[in-house]
Amino acid sequence: MPEKRRPRLTPAVADVRRAVREALPAAGDRSPLALVALSGGPDSLALAAATAFEASRAGWRAGAVIVDHGLQAGSETVADDAADVARELGLDPVSVRRVSVDVTGEGPEASARAARYEALTVAAREAGAEIVLLGHTLDDQAETVLLGLARGSGATSLQGMAPVSIGAGGVNLVRPLLGIRRATTHQACVDADLEPWTDPHNTDPSYSRVRVRERVLPVLEAELGPGIAEALARTAEQAREDSAAFQEQIDEFIEEICEPAEAGIAISAAALAANPAALRQRVIRFVVQSEFGVALSRSQTLDVARLVTDWRGQGPIDLPGLTAHRESGSINFTATDA
Amino acid sequence: MPEKRRPRLTPAVADVRRAVREALPAAGDRSPLALVALSGGPDSLALAAATAFEASRAGWRAGAVIVDHGLQAGSETVADDAADVARELGLDPVSVRRVSVDVTGEGPEASARAARYEALTVAAREAGAEIVLLGHTLDDQAETVLLGLARGSGATSLQGMAPVSIGAGGVNLVRPLLGIRRATTHQACVDADLEPWTDPHNTDPSYSRVRVRERVLPVLEAELGPGIAEALARTAEQAREDSAAFQEQIDEFIEEICEPAEAGIAISAAALAANPAALRQRVIRFVVQSEFGVALSRSQTLDVARLVTDWRGQGPIDLPGLTAHRESGSINFTATDA
Repeated sequence: MPEKRRPRLTPAVADVRRAVREALPAAGDRSPLALVALSGGPDSLALAAATAFEASRAGWRAGAVIVDHGLQAGSETVADDAADVARELGLDPVSVRRVSVDVTGEGPEASARAARYEALTVAAREAGAEIVLLGHTLDDQAETVLLGLARGSGATSLQGMAPVSIGAGGVNLVRPLLGIRRATTHQACVDADLEPWTDPHNTDPSYSRVRVRERVLPVLEAELGPGIAEALARTAEQAREDSAAFQEQIDEFIEEICEPAEAGIAISAAALAANPAALRQRVIRFVVQSEFGVALSRSQTLDVARLVTDWRGQGPIDLPGLTAHRESGSINFTATDA
Repeated sequence: MPEKRRPRLTPAVADVRRAVREALPAAGDRSPLALVALSGGPDSLALAAATAFEASRAGWRAGAVIVDHGLQAGSETVADDAADVARELGLDPVSVRRVSVDVTGEGPEASARAARYEALTVAAREAGAEIVLLGHTLDDQAETVLLGLARGSGATSLQGMAPVSIGAGGVNLVRPLLGIRRATTHQACVDADLEPWTDPHNTDPSYSRVRVRERVLPVLEAELGPGIAEALARTAEQAREDSAAFQEQIDEFIEEICEPAEAGIAISAAALAANPAALRQRVIRFVVQSEFGVALSRSQTLDVARLVTDWRGQGPIDLPGLTAHRESGSINFTATDA
């Protein structure tokens, strides 16, 4: 279906379209379906318009899914309006998903995000969509890196959002706009006569992301020069590559150096010793995460690593839900309640 | 020689002393010499006092070297006063090095740093010192990470300062205070009745480091919570470990995959292709740096990498002082003036 609006081909519109074009995988002759995750805000609206234009040219069908989190008065109207715009853009199918967010959990941001991704993947499954397109921009990526930097877990916390990741149920989550500035998506909406919705949450300073956007990044730009957002995004790319390289290496040898142990798992101390610190610590974190679902902090990881690098007969190390101790050449991890 | 001042053992004094104790290598029975690089400021003054106390107990002799950069009126007096305090603390030998800083070069900060390190290593060599102790604190490290983040070269620019590095002439540069907050060194000086010099450059906002210290870090602390300096320092540690692990891997295979070529060097394209992106790009950067002394940017590195990952017969890539092109299964790097 041809798009209903025909925006002038301004530089901003061209940039967003090119980003979408480059992010769409080869369609073959299957005419697969992509769904745009649309909030009605400028980023996802520019993405929706560009996708409506590019998809058919690349052999894709394109629809949209709008998630109504029900957290603000009038959210239903916002969602329905966004759905109308999506249909006007020529997207099909378009659906609105109403979710309920558990605001008592690990914070409203995390709960809303979890509910949103769940709804998006269900929508994709039901519509038979292969990919969901998300409107995160370079600015979102820079904010994510700064939030990760505050956690201080090295490359793991600096890698930001992936250009492509696998969501629940095998749906590919694709972020075509990670190289596009937010100012460009805003301009693309202006150029296309699209009126984005302004989310009041985006200026609520009780959200750490909003504080990063409105208070931290402008200071960094002013004091360290323009280009800081791009530098943060490059850092994310490189941190992601580094983590992928280490994980690839770990996957190659992890089975050889681990064996099941009573109520847990054991890693060969000699194998851990033979690896450089960065790999040793990642192996420890990886094994504890996969076996016990526990994310070790750096200082906990280093305590365990010292059973290898600084062995003086120290006793078991208490970790959340498990203990680590050294025994006959192995580092043994044992569930605490075992 | 016993130290002349006997500060109360307050928590701050104890923290700085412990940091020095843990950083001093085993002395054996050689009674080796360590020189404290003393500016007279609170960080290096607290370091000097702690070293005066700890060195003899650890079998070390301890002296001090003061570098007078000659950049400020009265710098000679500041240097001589610092030397007097060092002698009062019981340090011996104590020397003042007057250097001239080229302020026309790559910026006064870089020139002053280069002149300082040069003077420190010469002083160490002349005095027969094995190590030079530097007073950089956790706050300095956090500032360095933020400055590196603005460059956006991933782990390479995030690794901050090394706890131990090898300076010119084989002198070990040791930074015992990288885990100590600046507030602690200031308090240690107060507790020990030491009056540090206040460097006016430390509040001059024309220095990017000063802006990071006075404007950027306070905003990060306020908006992202306390602990950001520690998080940045942890990031540096992990970036350093990651870089070391990759370099160790590169060192293991680099000779097998490279061979001399006319006016340059060639790397096997198949070997580059077999490695994950993080290693492939590091190999390219490492080879160009070692062979031509040129530090490639990320986008230059990615251009070269595409000769491997996205080979479509593209022509030579122009780089500063060299070109890269693909030929008979190799990526060839050739000096431009050849």
